[in-house]
Amino acid sequence: MSQYWSDLVHTLQPYVPGEQPRHVELTKLNTNENPYPPSPRVRAVLDDAAVDALRLYPDPDSGALKAALAARAGLAPENVFIGNGSDDVLALAFMAFFKQPEPLRFPDLTYGFYPVYCKLFGIASRIVPLNAAFEVDPADYAAESGPIVLPNPNAPTGRALPLEQLERLLAANRERVVLIDEAYVDFGAESAVALLAEHPQLLVVQTFSKSRSLAGLRVGFAYGSAELIAGLERVKDSFNSYPLDRLAQAGALAALEDEDYFRDCIARVMATREWTVAELTRRGFAVLPSQTNFVLARVPNGRARALFEQLREVGVLVRYFDRPRLHEHLRISIGTDAEMRRLIEEIDRLLD
Amino acid sequence: MSQYWSDLVHTLQPYVPGEQPRHVELTKLNTNENPYPPSPRVRAVLDDAAVDALRLYPDPDSGALKAALAARAGLAPENVFIGNGSDDVLALAFMAFFKQPEPLRFPDLTYGFYPVYCKLFGIASRIVPLNAAFEVDPADYAAESGPIVLPNPNAPTGRALPLEQLERLLAANRERVVLIDEAYVDFGAESAVALLAEHPQLLVVQTFSKSRSLAGLRVGFAYGSAELIAGLERVKDSFNSYPLDRLAQAGALAALEDEDYFRDCIARVMATREWTVAELTRRGFAVLPSQTNFVLARVPNGRARALFEQLREVGVLVRYFDRPRLHEHLRISIGTDAEMRRLIEEIDRLLD
Repeated sequence: MSQYWSDLVHTLQPYVPGEQPRHVELTKLNTNENPYPPSPRVRAVLDDAAVDALRLYPDPDSGALKAALAARAGLAPENVFIGNGSDDVLALAFMAFFKQPEPLRFPDLTYGFYPVYCKLFGIASRIVPLNAAFEVDPADYAAESGPIVLPNPNAPTGRALPLEQLERLLAANRERVVLIDEAYVDFGAESAVALLAEHPQLLVVQTFSKSRSLAGLRVGFAYGSAELIAGLERVKDSFNSYPLDRLAQAGALAALEDEDYFRDCIARVMATREWTVAELTRRGFAVLPSQTNFVLARVPNGRARALFEQLREVGVLVRYFDRPRLHEHLRISIGTDAEMRRLIEEIDRLLD
Repeated sequence: MSQYWSDLVHTLQPYVPGEQPRHVELTKLNTNENPYPPSPRVRAVLDDAAVDALRLYPDPDSGALKAALAARAGLAPENVFIGNGSDDVLALAFMAFFKQPEPLRFPDLTYGFYPVYCKLFGIASRIVPLNAAFEVDPADYAAESGPIVLPNPNAPTGRALPLEQLERLLAANRERVVLIDEAYVDFGAESAVALLAEHPQLLVVQTFSKSRSLAGLRVGFAYGSAELIAGLERVKDSFNSYPLDRLAQAGALAALEDEDYFRDCIARVMATREWTVAELTRRGFAVLPSQTNFVLARVPNGRARALFEQLREVGVLVRYFDRPRLHEHLRISIGTDAEMRRLIEEIDRLLD
């Protein structure tokens, strides 16, 4: 509390960032980072010329990156929005499209920032529970007309809706924006980008943080109709006009252009995921089918908290959610083969 | 206009970014960028390890950079706030400290974003005209008790208040935050950091964009009392929790540590500035004393717009403000010696 603060500041709760340990000896399977480095092309593009050019302001529009993203999706630059990580894109989308009388709908188990943004921006919400198999059922979103935000695949469940079910959901919701958050889509799910031509209410948000191994660079983006992108640009230019810095623009573009590396990297993560699912299942974990770079697994006998703490003691970090429907599960990011072997070895030791 | 937009979006005006030409043959003296590249240490720190680490999220607190900034100013990390460029820091400070009943005071001729932020955040303001010599007079800020934002040196005038006058202003304004925006302070003015110990209401904002040649990296920061910094952190974590990316943190830290290069670089800019002032003065321009990397010069016969347009035609970009008190002036960024020679040659040709 301070006499200098606006009233606003007094009403805000200080935020405590998630655990980001700095000890390299840890096996870090708790924040869904990619275990592999970004494309070598990212290194190559950060050359003398790029560093010398840092004396100049960046392109406020991230024009080259925007054009490349548009081309990759068969869209025009006016269908692409770029932000400082997909959290930035999401926050701007909440302001641009969800701040309105009808409540925003999203699942009970989903990305934790959605309720946070609703609270911050004063957006009404209605929680739609996942079914017993932790799946989104499009029928649950058919009755009302408010906007929708839905990760596909969902987090922390890892489950994805196939395209025809997404299409059902969109066909029943044409009046307000439907935001599909595809942070994890590259690890085996189908992108809703294919549905953009038929659905001007659809906004598809993606990120370079997961499948492109660039969490440290903060680059996210959205695909949508020109009118949705124009709405986002208006809010961005008014509340947060900070462009991507030059190295972020250059690095993201280089990563985007290296399709072979991208394919290889996600194939490796998916192969390691399937190995991990098999090993966990063999040990009595109930693992949800995942199309992401993490798995949600019910711990044998439901003793998730105990296992979480024991793993942590030996330096293996996974994610535990102390909340209904999830407190018997652990969310485990897919690391390298060596990291996952270590996880399984520690589990064998601890659950012995 | 769109049925999908929030009411909010309809009320916002699309923003048109300033001219950022991409043709290298231009002589670009219109955006106050540094003509010299950043410290070679920035290049050195963007190595294989830094690029590999991009797969991991950045430190949300920019801890290493914060510690280095604190040490340089003889302060503690809790006295330092870091943002995505000083515009980000300013926007958060406006929300944290200026959104309150008493109007915010600032000069009639000053940084153009202040009135923009007031409008966006619904902040009442009162304009305090500069005196006839384009100087801030602390006496003009003594009568009321609202908060103040003041660049020192001021832009676009280039004039700076000496420390004892800043102290007078602070002594008369202890109830609300006084924000001193020191974007250009390193080019010859005195920093208000020396006054922080006595003034918990003082917030000093600086940037890596000008004197550190890192406009392309988007790094700004503020020094202040722990209670002001805590207020900024609260707003940032709530509305815009985007951390600096890893390369921005590493690059800024490397630049900060290269004190010799920094000193050399600003000495060169200041020497070129003095040469430019002398040459312009000799040609009948009335040049305000500048402690920045630009000069504000009244064009002979006041024909600033015509000269601006003529210079532009030959590829020399300077800044013209079509507004009262400034429409007979040009703001000219200080480039390399060669760039300033070209400017003078073109002026000689055009005003012949």
